[in-house]
Amino acid sequence: MRTIVTLTTDFGTRDAYVAQLKGVLYAQGPSQLEVVDLTHEIAAQSVLEAALFVRAAWPRFPAGTIHLVVVDPGVGSARRALALAHGQQLWLGPDNGVMSLALGAAEPRAVALDPLLVGTSQLSATFHGRDLFAPAAARLAHGTSLESLGAAAQDLVHISLPLVQRSRSELQGEILHVDRYGNLISNITRQHLLALSAAQQSSEPDLQRLRARVGSSPWLPLVRCYADAASGTASALLGSSDLLEVAVTNGNAAAQLSCQPGTPLFVRHEPAS
Amino acid sequence: MRTIVTLTTDFGTRDAYVAQLKGVLYAQGPSQLEVVDLTHEIAAQSVLEAALFVRAAWPRFPAGTIHLVVVDPGVGSARRALALAHGQQLWLGPDNGVMSLALGAAEPRAVALDPLLVGTSQLSATFHGRDLFAPAAARLAHGTSLESLGAAAQDLVHISLPLVQRSRSELQGEILHVDRYGNLISNITRQHLLALSAAQQSSEPDLQRLRARVGSSPWLPLVRCYADAASGTASALLGSSDLLEVAVTNGNAAAQLSCQPGTPLFVRHEPAS
Amino acid sequence: MRTIVTLTTDFGTRDAYVAQLKGVLYAQGPSQLEVVDLTHEIAAQSVLEAALFVRAAWPRFPAGTIHLVVVDPGVGSARRALALAHGQQLWLGPDNGVMSLALGAAEPRAVALDPLLVGTSQLSATFHGRDLFAPAAARLAHGTSLESLGAAAQDLVHISLPLVQRSRSELQGEILHVDRYGNLISNITRQHLLALSAAQQSSEPDLQRLRARVGSSPWLPLVRCYADAASGTASALLGSSDLLEVAVTNGNAAAQLSCQPGTPLFVRHEPAS
Repeated sequence: MRTIVTLTTDFGTRDAYVAQLKGVLYAQGPSQLEVVDLTHEIAAQSVLEAALFVRAAWPRFPAGTIHLVVVDPGVGSARRALALAHGQQLWLGPDNGVMSLALGAAEPRAVALDPLLVGTSQLSATFHGRDLFAPAAARLAHGTSLESLGAAAQDLVHISLPLVQRSRSELQGEILHVDRYGNLISNITRQHLLALSAAQQSSEPDLQRLRARVGSSPWLPLVRCYADAASGTASALLGSSDLLEVAVTNGNAAAQLSCQPGTPLFVRHEPAS
Repeated sequence: MRTIVTLTTDFGTRDAYVAQLKGVLYAQGPSQLEVVDLTHEIAAQSVLEAALFVRAAWPRFPAGTIHLVVVDPGVGSARRALALAHGQQLWLGPDNGVMSLALGAAEPRAVALDPLLVGTSQLSATFHGRDLFAPAAARLAHGTSLESLGAAAQDLVHISLPLVQRSRSELQGEILHVDRYGNLISNITRQHLLALSAAQQSSEPDLQRLRARVGSSPWLPLVRCYADAASGTASALLGSSDLLEVAVTNGNAAAQLSCQPGTPLFVRHEPAS
Repeated sequence: MRTIVTLTTDFGTRDAYVAQLKGVLYAQGPSQLEVVDLTHEIAAQSVLEAALFVRAAWPRFPAGTIHLVVVDPGVGSARRALALAHGQQLWLGPDNGVMSLALGAAEPRAVALDPLLVGTSQLSATFHGRDLFAPAAARLAHGTSLESLGAAAQDLVHISLPLVQRSRSELQGEILHVDRYGNLISNITRQHLLALSAAQQSSEPDLQRLRARVGSSPWLPLVRCYADAASGTASALLGSSDLLEVAVTNGNAAAQLSCQPGTPLFVRHEPAS
């Protein structure tokens, strides 16, 4: 029975950090272990970017998957090294909130990894991915229980996203992430849009009557897919994770509209005409 | 029996798009499915670059390989989502020509994917890689037939490369691609060179008597390998895909000769001396 | 029984070179072969960078692993193509020193690959990774012996690192590598530090009394982990490969201290106060 171990890091692949971590997993794990790269391109030390990444990715994976999430600027300090169970998957990473957006409000079964119980032979002060998390993942892949790797851990560190502000007639959110295409992905969800629309109309919510504005853009229509707007034109749409995003069809919205993470995004109902 | 599913995308790996797609493949495919990254670094929305990439890569893969080729700026529009069989391998991607250079003149057995037949539970308007192509690939990896996933599709979109112009004494092609080393890879093939050489000589074709010029370069000799030219020197050679390229040994030809895709490349016979 | 084949190249993944190489391995190797990407982001043609990378990575891998190390600016010239055995693992790469830092002083059992014995059908002049090293790796993965792929090879090319200079009171090393975080990794080892410390004290060596200076930095304390220094502050520490490095906590030391590979690094005992 195959066990998938996913890797989410800010290591890049130009250095040998990912390679060492893979070596440990293949050397110490069972022969049915398969390492799957999710990303090594998280911005250096960006716990938030990694937390958003993992939140989007994990629900797609099968039960039994083991996720290694190593964005760990506090490595070697007193921060705990966690292993936990959530959604029939297992997770390893530092206790800095990097897994918290995936967990949501759940209180997972978690332990603080104890190097002696993990059986780590040498623990460096700067690379727990290789020396603690990967050996622990290998142990879990062999069927070892969480509880045998450390003492129960409560009160995990959580990070929170900026809140969406809503008045009766307008939403104000912000850009969380600029993707590779320059699409501006915000913290405004489908639910926020439906609530705003419902507050404005007696009939069925109609998202097509909403307008969005970000950075230097005018009020933009909501479309269904990129190809619904003319090439070079900005528009807003609900992206593949049900978050409102602003895109320029066949172009780069971040560059064209001078936006970045943190830029405010406004949504209102189209004005009466 | 293992089934290889290759991924060729313009997603990059900083965003969670590739990760979600892998999750779907591992969750919905058979346990012998193995995902193999070919590239996620196709220039954003460059159907041509992806088509050239796939043309170079696919002939090396074993029979039964499933190729997912997702460069899909028209996602959510009326463009068809294809699954097809070619060269004992299976292929999935949008009907925008991204697979057409690999197909050449072949008329493959193809279907337009029907989300209901694929069994897609939720089809976003912006991410058919995750919601349609990956589930279809998982079905094919389970042994499902193409025909059970959609209706037969004809008249697939083809893209064509710029033609090489040939007079009796000269070829004019152009740079298609600049690789990581700055090598300038053109649309001029070994066959073009042999034909030009044959037209100039009564005896055996002799490629070593040809000269090439591109951008700001002088007429360059044809060499056999990079190390045949002095360090820092430009030369032309038939690259590993039998296309004429211009390289600077231990240097970067694109930078040194101010070239890019689209720059004309000329070949002629060495002048009589 | 699974066989792991690792890839370390300077190909990048935007071009189809890695993809072709993977295709050959999967097509010609046994079905239990698993390709593992270590890196494709070695700086173009940097044999030294690749040699440092492989030296750090290989000891973590299980016995039986096959390493393909293809940074090969001399491809097509008279340089030998090697296959060798070292540390219960197998290695393939050009004879340009790219594997030599991993070998250390060992004299490995090595052969110069003979294309006829490897069974290469077509050997391009510019891509031996695809046409010679990958087919040879596939043969080795099938259990073929090294000796059946070529004649014994001696006197392999070695590259050497810059030496650390030591006086009674000071070490002078240099920066070998700048990692993704901007950390400056030097050629000064834990042993060098212990020797310097021992030369200065009658009692136990005490690394905490050493100070390091690089580029525009003042004399920096040695800390145990990044989090031991205040955010934005430079410090020195023994990194995860037991090499002295200079880092800026939550920052980029290379940028902040204007350093690059080759910049001298000095270590001395703290002055008597």
